Amino acid sequence: MLRKAVLLIMDGLGDRPVRELDDLTPLERARTPNLDRLAADGICGLMSTLGLGRVPGSDTAHLTLLGYDIGECYFGRGPIEVAGLGLKLEPGDVALRGNLGTVDDSLTIIDRRAGRITDVSGFARELDGIEIEGVRFIVAPGTGHRVGVVMRGKGLSAQVSDADPHVGGVKPHRPVPLVDSPEARFTADVLTRFIATAHEVLSKSRLNQERVARGLPAANYVLLRGAGQYHGCPTFKDRYGLNACTIAGAGLYKGIGAYTGMTVVDVPGATGLPNTDVRAKFQKLVECLQTYDFAFVHVKAADSLGEDRNCQGKMEFIEKVDAAAEVLFGLPDDVLLVITADHSTPCELGRHSGDPVPILMRGQGVRVDSVCAFGERPCASGGLGLVQGGDVMLEILNLIGLGKLVGA
Amino acid sequence: MLRKAVLLIMDGLGDRPVRELDDLTPLERARTPNLDRLAADGICGLMSTLGLGRVPGSDTAHLTLLGYDIGECYFGRGPIEVAGLGLKLEPGDVALRGNLGTVDDSLTIIDRRAGRITDVSGFARELDGIEIEGVRFIVAPGTGHRVGVVMRGKGLSAQVSDADPHVGGVKPHRPVPLVDSPEARFTADVLTRFIATAHEVLSKSRLNQERVARGLPAANYVLLRGAGQYHGCPTFKDRYGLNACTIAGAGLYKGIGAYTGMTVVDVPGATGLPNTDVRAKFQKLVECLQTYDFAFVHVKAADSLGEDRNCQGKMEFIEKVDAAAEVLFGLPDDVLLVITADHSTPCELGRHSGDPVPILMRGQGVRVDSVCAFGERPCASGGLGLVQGGDVMLEILNLIGLGKLVGA
Repeated sequence: MLRKAVLLIMDGLGDRPVRELDDLTPLERARTPNLDRLAADGICGLMSTLGLGRVPGSDTAHLTLLGYDIGECYFGRGPIEVAGLGLKLEPGDVALRGNLGTVDDSLTIIDRRAGRITDVSGFARELDGIEIEGVRFIVAPGTGHRVGVVMRGKGLSAQVSDADPHVGGVKPHRPVPLVDSPEARFTADVLTRFIATAHEVLSKSRLNQERVARGLPAANYVLLRGAGQYHGCPTFKDRYGLNACTIAGAGLYKGIGAYTGMTVVDVPGATGLPNTDVRAKFQKLVECLQTYDFAFVHVKAADSLGEDRNCQGKMEFIEKVDAAAEVLFGLPDDVLLVITADHSTPCELGRHSGDPVPILMRGQGVRVDSVCAFGERPCASGGLGLVQGGDVMLEILNLIGLGKLVGA
Repeated sequence: MLRKAVLLIMDGLGDRPVRELDDLTPLERARTPNLDRLAADGICGLMSTLGLGRVPGSDTAHLTLLGYDIGECYFGRGPIEVAGLGLKLEPGDVALRGNLGTVDDSLTIIDRRAGRITDVSGFARELDGIEIEGVRFIVAPGTGHRVGVVMRGKGLSAQVSDADPHVGGVKPHRPVPLVDSPEARFTADVLTRFIATAHEVLSKSRLNQERVARGLPAANYVLLRGAGQYHGCPTFKDRYGLNACTIAGAGLYKGIGAYTGMTVVDVPGATGLPNTDVRAKFQKLVECLQTYDFAFVHVKAADSLGEDRNCQGKMEFIEKVDAAAEVLFGLPDDVLLVITADHSTPCELGRHSGDPVPILMRGQGVRVDSVCAFGERPCASGGLGLVQGGDVMLEILNLIGLGKLVGA
């Protein structure tokens, strides 16, 4: 009997027919014997994450697939990103993500990523704990040039504009209140003062003196964006009673795991890039299911390759995932395997789209349909029909015998 | 032209592939020539009573299939059960279901069912009409050891805990308020006093003196549970203009019929158990359609056998229903026949699940698809697609020409 479940998200997997792939999608065109066998062993369908025609963001898509109502638990990207950096949020906190960049003496941005600096932890330590008007700034290093910033204090608002202008050669923006409220004005003011203070601290930093001496651009400015105010969100364990882990390479998805209180498992070689070690992730998954009841596994690159309009690369990455999927046949008998995507990223568009994505559910006792290939076309005639994203967790709970009775 | 309709619910019919049934479901594995012919003559699909993954209770499922919004018309199991005992509810009434059981002098429960007493009508008469603080207790006998109790008076609440501890060898619980409100406190208090009074009355009852003299345990305590407050519910006739009848063996389903104002037709031999006389029910159905426009027919045992994890028994019971289904070919030409289930009860789980169930609609002029077997897999490719439970009555009305125009 099924007792555990895996939700494997192949980011941006869905696509549209591509002329150079014989009018097939990358998934249809890819040679995927393992995914096809899993489809044949299980029940398939199409899944519309937020509803037909609605284009999901990465964050909202994942929260929805994990059964969270984004109207209740989504407060912008900042809180999720900083959760992924190990920061614990408290209700009322305003979280932002950002870069360390380089500005010149006239405060013009020379490099938004400070020469693609690889480790900002020393700088983050220098900024962490700065306090302005009773608001404490908690700063954590992200991967590469990235940082996460949490503002903790009374009377804050997320209604402040981005300081990061998203391009170089210009001056950073001054954060301004986006609504006419005392909280937004206060937050914009405190944030502006923090950015100035941070610039001062970073400019004087011995670490930057060393960088400049080595001919590297100084990481002397914090470019912030995506303010979101956290208002609390139940953990996955509280919601479902399941001990859950996250296996992901890219920061946002580790963030989704941390945000929902899952254990984020580190897998060496999981990069979130096409070079990622998918097999290592799947092997770690099999191992984790000895301890955990639920695993959220994320594989990123099909999405990035779709955004790059690289349909050949997307197809090849799908084949790489399929080769690693061999490992999934080694999952214990009591594990339900669900494979789907968070959204489509059609190569022709080069961005997320609202086209539904294939979904398969496979495990002992799960109904089987006649679909025997994992692809947009074959799954459209699957036994699951068209599944709504917000129903995926309900169906997982149902299949592993944990569905709650409505009525008596 | 279709003018009348039958909604035949085979309770808990849906299932999952079972290894010992060659990886087929009990319905797929059963030999069902009559159901298959009805499927071939009609249009099929899968039906999700409350939506994908949601696990329906028996009461909520039936109300939904009859087109009632459970947010508006479902007030717990008590009101439905007592309606099935012939009690007419008024808005504000609190209804409970219960057993007559046996307690000893220390008030410890010796037998929750008073030696499986077969007729409690004499005792119910002794308790009926007791009045405490302006609250009148209406007591009706159910089948076997069961009773229904209605509290009628001002200022009542359903937010009171069960007195029935659901096990023997312990003392009954004292009903306590579940919320901090004057109504809940008042109701718990009055109910507690009723239970004590009832114990006194039953202890002194001549009927119990006779039982004890015959060596039987005294039915001296009323164990109550499932309080629900009725707030009114339109009759089936009011909603749809159809004269409707219910043909069912088990109490809850007679209750559903009575609750929605249908005539509950008695069929000798209809027991709600695997031994039930399905053929007699179907014969009564054919007869009833001379008088009624709509019949809700309920066959219980596939559900109970699924709960017992008895897949062989479930399969055999389905074959028994199929044999009786021969009678259904004798339905008049103006009758639409709809066959489905309220939910799945997979043998492997031993409880209700949210897996969708097969549905077929067959009648003169109804579209026909290519499905020619009534089963989970074949129906998945039927012309109805995936039907939502709350849409079933709309589609029935549509097919019999009574659909209401939306707009002009």
